[in-house]
Amino acid sequence: MKKICVLLLVFVIILIKSGAAQENFLQYVNPLIGTKKMGHTFPGATVPFGAVQLSPDTDTLPYEMGGKYNPDVYKYCAGYQYDDPTIVGFSHTHFSGTGHSDLGDFLIMPTTGRLQLNPGTADKPETGYRSRFRHASERAEPDYYSVLLDDDHILAELTTTTRVGVHQYTFPKSEDAHIILDLMHGIYNYKDKNVWTFVRVENDTLVTGYRQTNGWARTRTVYFAMTFSKPVTSYGFASFKSYPYKGFWRRFDQSDNFPEMAGEQLRAHFDFKTGDQEKILIKFALSPVSTKNALENLQTETPGNDFEAIKKQGQQKWNKELAKIKIEALNKEDMTSFYTAMYHAFLSPTVYMDQNGEYKGLDQNVHKAEGFTNYTTFSLWDTYRALHPFFNLIQPKRNNDMIRSMLAHQQQSVHKMLPVWSHYANENWCMSGYHSVAVIADAIVKGNVSFDANQALNACIQTANVRYYDGLGTYIRRGYVPEDERPNSVSTTLEYAFDDWSIAQAARRLNRMDVYDTFMKRSQNWKNVYDPSTGFMRPRLSNGSFRKDFDVLSTNGQGFIEGNSWNYSLFVPQDPKGMIALMGGEKKFLPHLDSLFTMHLPDHFFEETEDITRDGIIGNYVHGNEPSHHVAYLYNFTAQPWKTQERIRMILKMQYKPSVDGLGGNDDCGQMSAWYIFSTLGFYPFAPGSEEYQLGSPAIKKAVLQLENGKTFTIDVQNQSDKNVYVSKVLLNGQPVKGTTIRHSDILKGGVLQFVMAARHR
Amino acid sequence: MKKICVLLLVFVIILIKSGAAQENFLQYVNPLIGTKKMGHTFPGATVPFGAVQLSPDTDTLPYEMGGKYNPDVYKYCAGYQYDDPTIVGFSHTHFSGTGHSDLGDFLIMPTTGRLQLNPGTADKPETGYRSRFRHASERAEPDYYSVLLDDDHILAELTTTTRVGVHQYTFPKSEDAHIILDLMHGIYNYKDKNVWTFVRVENDTLVTGYRQTNGWARTRTVYFAMTFSKPVTSYGFASFKSYPYKGFWRRFDQSDNFPEMAGEQLRAHFDFKTGDQEKILIKFALSPVSTKNALENLQTETPGNDFEAIKKQGQQKWNKELAKIKIEALNKEDMTSFYTAMYHAFLSPTVYMDQNGEYKGLDQNVHKAEGFTNYTTFSLWDTYRALHPFFNLIQPKRNNDMIRSMLAHQQQSVHKMLPVWSHYANENWCMSGYHSVAVIADAIVKGNVSFDANQALNACIQTANVRYYDGLGTYIRRGYVPEDERPNSVSTTLEYAFDDWSIAQAARRLNRMDVYDTFMKRSQNWKNVYDPSTGFMRPRLSNGSFRKDFDVLSTNGQGFIEGNSWNYSLFVPQDPKGMIALMGGEKKFLPHLDSLFTMHLPDHFFEETEDITRDGIIGNYVHGNEPSHHVAYLYNFTAQPWKTQERIRMILKMQYKPSVDGLGGNDDCGQMSAWYIFSTLGFYPFAPGSEEYQLGSPAIKKAVLQLENGKTFTIDVQNQSDKNVYVSKVLLNGQPVKGTTIRHSDILKGGVLQFVMAARHR
Repeated sequence: MKKICVLLLVFVIILIKSGAAQENFLQYVNPLIGTKKMGHTFPGATVPFGAVQLSPDTDTLPYEMGGKYNPDVYKYCAGYQYDDPTIVGFSHTHFSGTGHSDLGDFLIMPTTGRLQLNPGTADKPETGYRSRFRHASERAEPDYYSVLLDDDHILAELTTTTRVGVHQYTFPKSEDAHIILDLMHGIYNYKDKNVWTFVRVENDTLVTGYRQTNGWARTRTVYFAMTFSKPVTSYGFASFKSYPYKGFWRRFDQSDNFPEMAGEQLRAHFDFKTGDQEKILIKFALSPVSTKNALENLQTETPGNDFEAIKKQGQQKWNKELAKIKIEALNKEDMTSFYTAMYHAFLSPTVYMDQNGEYKGLDQNVHKAEGFTNYTTFSLWDTYRALHPFFNLIQPKRNNDMIRSMLAHQQQSVHKMLPVWSHYANENWCMSGYHSVAVIADAIVKGNVSFDANQALNACIQTANVRYYDGLGTYIRRGYVPEDERPNSVSTTLEYAFDDWSIAQAARRLNRMDVYDTFMKRSQNWKNVYDPSTGFMRPRLSNGSFRKDFDVLSTNGQGFIEGNSWNYSLFVPQDPKGMIALMGGEKKFLPHLDSLFTMHLPDHFFEETEDITRDGIIGNYVHGNEPSHHVAYLYNFTAQPWKTQERIRMILKMQYKPSVDGLGGNDDCGQMSAWYIFSTLGFYPFAPGSEEYQLGSPAIKKAVLQLENGKTFTIDVQNQSDKNVYVSKVLLNGQPVKGTTIRHSDILKGGVLQFVMAARHR
Repeated sequence: MKKICVLLLVFVIILIKSGAAQENFLQYVNPLIGTKKMGHTFPGATVPFGAVQLSPDTDTLPYEMGGKYNPDVYKYCAGYQYDDPTIVGFSHTHFSGTGHSDLGDFLIMPTTGRLQLNPGTADKPETGYRSRFRHASERAEPDYYSVLLDDDHILAELTTTTRVGVHQYTFPKSEDAHIILDLMHGIYNYKDKNVWTFVRVENDTLVTGYRQTNGWARTRTVYFAMTFSKPVTSYGFASFKSYPYKGFWRRFDQSDNFPEMAGEQLRAHFDFKTGDQEKILIKFALSPVSTKNALENLQTETPGNDFEAIKKQGQQKWNKELAKIKIEALNKEDMTSFYTAMYHAFLSPTVYMDQNGEYKGLDQNVHKAEGFTNYTTFSLWDTYRALHPFFNLIQPKRNNDMIRSMLAHQQQSVHKMLPVWSHYANENWCMSGYHSVAVIADAIVKGNVSFDANQALNACIQTANVRYYDGLGTYIRRGYVPEDERPNSVSTTLEYAFDDWSIAQAARRLNRMDVYDTFMKRSQNWKNVYDPSTGFMRPRLSNGSFRKDFDVLSTNGQGFIEGNSWNYSLFVPQDPKGMIALMGGEKKFLPHLDSLFTMHLPDHFFEETEDITRDGIIGNYVHGNEPSHHVAYLYNFTAQPWKTQERIRMILKMQYKPSVDGLGGNDDCGQMSAWYIFSTLGFYPFAPGSEEYQLGSPAIKKAVLQLENGKTFTIDVQNQSDKNVYVSKVLLNGQPVKGTTIRHSDILKGGVLQFVMAARHR
């Protein structure tokens, strides 16, 4: 009896322990958040930073209609729009939250009955292989997605490993079950985007091939290896482009059970007979290098065919990442918002190398990552602001590897430039600035350095001196980018100036004072586009004069990109005090800043900008685009930091909702989410390249950050409520915090940051 | 005084010795032979079996004109036609003597003055970058070609190493000297053939890139690295295809000094200032794998910039290969014909791997050749007949490496087939049969085996059982390919039957008698298409009956490829006695065979076949196409072998002339030349896969074959003259030869084969 009691006790302890170890954060993640309207997130399966994002595409419109850009294509940056009634199929690569797109490689769709090799249309799904579906029979979790495909009564389930997409389709009984492999399908698919595709049926359970495209990434190839859990009974292809020259291939009937196909526009089908409720499992591995590597990835990562085991493994990975910050929120909704933001923040950059370390470089040669994991998908104009600083805090090892990936990119670049916006061995040059330098500087200044910091600084300097890049030569010579030389001249000038400041900070840390001096001087260039007569940043011409016609609210070809002068004029994170002074001092500046949040913006102004909805705007404060992300923290540099606290809580509430249409703008590869996470925790990296965080108003009751150095940093919030948005006191390890900042090194030491909240400001 | 005498004597001895060592065979080679009319040879620079064939292209017409095949394109299989008045430029890859084409990669052209990025037309060369030239200022030697480009007074000189093309251009004084790099140029260039091209200007003396095409080779990519001996002052590109989507690349002026370009249709220019008679040297390395490997090839093979030294090295390579057979001919013309044939026989297959052993395989993955040199360009329908047997004799090591390349191809093939006609990691499926097996069998039977012979035999068996290949399934089942199933059914049946016999021979040698039995049985299938009622091979239908409308002379869709029934009916090299018997015995057969050479063939019959001129035909004997290459030796199997001797000497004289139009048909990657060499030496591999050579009538006075085993085999011809074409006696090492054959093993032992010639036959 005693023995039994002891055993029972042990059992209970084990239960409690394992329960604690297995605290389930997955329950708070809803991958469907942001899939309606402009969030541009995808609901499908992926592991943290996984190379495969296996997700349903509800449509992928052609980039052009009747020779003109088709604006509707924009809705499908991530392939999925919540309101759509049909699913075309499941493709293996997706960006999360971008405002431009690419990818959507290798669409797979299961069907039964008459073989259809066209996708059909949303209004007439029966004309093609696509299927109707209902959200009631759809389920999205981290690394798991399932949906019932109503047309043919097929249950689709998806999960992944880092490099392998795993599909499990439960078929009805059928003599004519098909798996469609559509190589023409893609996101942002315009005419001639497919450059070449190639498929080999190696045997009755293994298919290999590749897709080469000319898109946002100009020269991109993705290789695959696909296995079926059951032998194919027959297969075939159709080519949707004919060639004047067929050569001796014409001797074969290539459409029918011929194991080798190549061309620009191909769709393949693989046929099976299925019993009732028979499951067919497909493993689909990707590689940036070769079909050989893809197969190796497949064999290494998914040796078996147990869908549930693979899913469990992937979900455990997620839980481990999500557990790095444990919060107590005010309510369930906030838990969902927070952990979904964590989820979105951990989607990209994505792993871009094979199990054997090989990856394709920017020079299109195959490289081997020695001692680091190579990453791709660097949306740096967005992510330098809060996502990479967040990684410095909570994913420092990964952030280092990302920087090493960026440095490899720079070595491989014929321009010897760090990435601007890069994906899949390509620079796509999207947006402006050279914000890689801020990511690198932030890591150097915060001491998160496993790379050669001096070499990295050299790469930054080299990048900041590529004179043919986007007005940079003139900027260096004259201190600003003239509007008559380059569009978006003001935002470009402001961003260069900030980036230059970050280079200077890294240089100071490395004691290279000549570099520090040069770039500190350059960092003052923001002043050259400030027009004292209007109090705004304003396009300036080569002759030194300011551009005449000029509307501070317009974002349309008025010297700014994804933002108007009103918002961009506040973009001097490197010198907010200097900016406030130049703008007439606090007395003038405070009502000016207040009015940003309260003014009424006429309708037509946000019609001009495609990637945010009206929801993404508060007054004229545009949270849906990144240039304003530091703006609410500007009050900290005045006598009224309580307004920062107030605004932050307002933005958190208004701009992030735990619903499918909960994101006010593109999530932008996690930048919007990283803003949410930081601001929810109560601090924000106002100027990446600085050790300092600006304090805001935490929106949780408690948070425990598990740091990679083994320490924990706890944020403890007293007197928290939706109304108590003002911070009356802040204590770091029991000592009052003076001013509005804490330092990164304070956090690294571990400890407790205590906020005491109040309903009224001090 | 005595001392001086001794010194003088030593000097004279050295002179004589070095003179002997450096016997110059280059003087007998004229690379221009075959460049007029249908020889399809190229006059440019290459080393033996070199990966680079750097040669002038005098035009490359589009494959289609007004939506229809342009028959004139055929003249440009090797890029050069002797009668053309202009040179478009110098490209780096050329087939020698093919009857279909591809390649012509990376055309380089030097110009001065106004930049022109279009080639212009032959009748108005001033409209483009091409130039007039004259044969008077043209010079072609092994691994050296030079020509004066009259329009801009530029002397062009070309030489190569195995993987590097070296250009030396001597410019006049110019402020506007240009090197054009045309990536659109190519041989057999049809619409959309270019799939993708990519260029990076790495620095002011180094450019890298690649060209990817969909042509005869469906999925082919060639990478390059190019260096200039002097820094470029400026450069630029033009794209001749515009894309609907330009992305953020539009921020650059990519046409002007922008170091990175990609697209389908590109031409680049590199600008220099030149002094009078200033030489600019370009080294242009190729790789099947990557620009990295191309650069490595360049640095390894051409560390310096000394054109003369590189040329000397290349010519020494040639002299070494040519010296493997030293002949005494009846006259200078025969010397030229012989050594030019040797030259043409040693052009292909070409090396297809980088200095580091890497090459692209048929599966499009990168492979490493372990322990062998990987080759490509296997024109096997042609070359199995005499070229590979010739290699077994005089290049056995290389032939073994070629077989190992073919076995690697088979391993990489999704069909698990040995090459049919392959080039650059592609099977192009050209022509018929599976003649790789005869190449392999010939090597096995002759004991030239460094590969795993049993594995090789397995590859042959596997190849001979791919049922979806060109009627093979029905052939296996029913013993012939029905004409209503596949075109060219008779020639295909006959070739399969021969190939099967060769497999059987290899099997017997390896003591695999079950395989021997199976394939000996299959080798009798030629009888199934013999129509006793006409005495000819005749197309047979699925129902067993012979096709009704049937013309024994026509080559046009009557069951035969590159030959008519008259010629193909004699294609039973595996069983000539059986064939003669079936055709009614010697009494009927002899006058039948006689009439082949004497009959008058109506004009329209050879208009049907595109790749030979009237010169390629003697009566109805078509030497310009390969199926008849054994035919003149058929008399050896009758009581009148003297007719073989007579015909051989006649064919040698009529079909091979040491002039630009000296080849009666395509040289077919050396097969025509190999026939010439064997027949000139007095013996011929009548049935590859047999140890036996059939004796003919030697056309030289003496030949010394330097064998790789260190032995020499001398052919000593007594009483030789143009009239003494009949062989009255043959002695092998002093012993009379009985019958009309000698064995390969006899030759390998070294020794002397003595022919005594006479003006009348015995």
